[in-house]
Amino acid sequence: MFRQLGLIGCGLMGGSFALAMKRAGLVKHVVGYSKSPSTVITAQKMGVIDQMAESALMAVSGADIVLIAVPVAATEATLRAIRHLVHPNTLFMDVGSTKADVVAAARRVLRERLPSFVPAHPIAGKEVAGITHADATLYQDCQVVLTPTVETDMTLIERARAAWTGIGAQVRVMTPDAHDAAFAAVSHLPHLLAFAAFLSVQHQPEGAQFLELAGPGFRDFTRIAAGDPAVWRDVLLANKAQVLAQAELFKTTLYKFESAMRDGNADVIEGLIKQAATGRANWKK
Amino acid sequence: MFRQLGLIGCGLMGGSFALAMKRAGLVKHVVGYSKSPSTVITAQKMGVIDQMAESALMAVSGADIVLIAVPVAATEATLRAIRHLVHPNTLFMDVGSTKADVVAAARRVLRERLPSFVPAHPIAGKEVAGITHADATLYQDCQVVLTPTVETDMTLIERARAAWTGIGAQVRVMTPDAHDAAFAAVSHLPHLLAFAAFLSVQHQPEGAQFLELAGPGFRDFTRIAAGDPAVWRDVLLANKAQVLAQAELFKTTLYKFESAMRDGNADVIEGLIKQAATGRANWKK
Repeated sequence: MFRQLGLIGCGLMGGSFALAMKRAGLVKHVVGYSKSPSTVITAQKMGVIDQMAESALMAVSGADIVLIAVPVAATEATLRAIRHLVHPNTLFMDVGSTKADVVAAARRVLRERLPSFVPAHPIAGKEVAGITHADATLYQDCQVVLTPTVETDMTLIERARAAWTGIGAQVRVMTPDAHDAAFAAVSHLPHLLAFAAFLSVQHQPEGAQFLELAGPGFRDFTRIAAGDPAVWRDVLLANKAQVLAQAELFKTTLYKFESAMRDGNADVIEGLIKQAATGRANWKK
Repeated sequence: MFRQLGLIGCGLMGGSFALAMKRAGLVKHVVGYSKSPSTVITAQKMGVIDQMAESALMAVSGADIVLIAVPVAATEATLRAIRHLVHPNTLFMDVGSTKADVVAAARRVLRERLPSFVPAHPIAGKEVAGITHADATLYQDCQVVLTPTVETDMTLIERARAAWTGIGAQVRVMTPDAHDAAFAAVSHLPHLLAFAAFLSVQHQPEGAQFLELAGPGFRDFTRIAAGDPAVWRDVLLANKAQVLAQAELFKTTLYKFESAMRDGNADVIEGLIKQAATGRANWKK
């Protein structure tokens, strides 16, 4: 389907994409670039990439598919570095968790070349980062949201869909704003709450003893608190308006519980928990 | 080790204890009582209990070990129903997630018979309730906290420890207040936050679409939101002072993130996430 993948950023997300595309026979040759020389060497040793590139621009040269898999805040600089080789007929994608900011950066930098860029967000990840955790099955059965603009080339959207579908993912198409609103609610705010919850326990004088007593519920609840600090710093800032709005809604709900507890209102508390528990139990996964 | 187990409440917790004690050869005969006649019939059909009792008091009769596995708020009435058969040399335990309230109830009801009662909290559970989910391995490798009072019979504490250890659990001894402070932090507040977080998404106009997009991080973060409403209503009320205090600490931490986001202070945000992520990654499980 594709001849050559240019991979910019050889971390967990990018490395897993390259491995999956190769395993599925969807790409013949992978040229990879990473800011860190040791990462790109490891990627080649692991067979994730076939050839090392000395710059992002070199990784793009000759590629018919390019994946930009760098922290969200580095996307604009990356687009700037490669813009001269952003041709029609080459599919350019990113993997960022926020999309309005990425689309705005792409619009600023790529201008008339914007149609080649299909913004993508694969809903996948691990609480470990780096090339050594790259995994050909990472995107198997996950969802991938594409957030094209009105300018985006329809043919490239379909090629993007075929690539992700070919490695086992399900593809949805949304506007960048709808994407960011949804993920503020179901991903960014939950991460923020998990960071704050873990930190709040940890910072207490008896925090260490408390943490020793924590069980499997706490383990699962705080799993996402181990997320990559640079990645989540960028996400929380890139989507801050939506995340702060979701935080307000959350606090309003929390306040309902707190005031029912203060009043000793068992019926209200049970009613609220019942709605949450029923909703959660009936939720798809 | 024991001759006859009197089981009051044949749900997930009680049923799993009976199965585990039998499998480990630690008890010969189990007599069970449940408020719901169909539950006790199912428990007998499943082999969880050997004999049905028509009342809590009948379940205690002839037992040398009694487990009270009813919702926390029903503990006092249960103790009242059985108090005439609370003899020395018989080990009485509960499984409640809060302990100061249980100890206070036991003190009120049992009075001079208080030494026979060893308050227990096994840190185990599932997001499903009921006898049909009873599982002989539920307590394998879990922690059990015993919160005896100064009056509690030392021999019975040791028998309690031997019973739980015999079915694969690790036993700790704490005061009821220290227990409740710790579990407000690592269990009760996390449940409250998960209930509020799920509900807050669900109640939004686009909540249903948002939930369809949620991935594995959200799944794990909200797993505990499917907890049993009656159980968690009782826990949140029984331990409300400690839970509300933990909620204040949590909100203070959340506020630090929110204000750093508003200020666009990337360093502060990254620093906070790094502390949480490092702490979580180094945590035992």
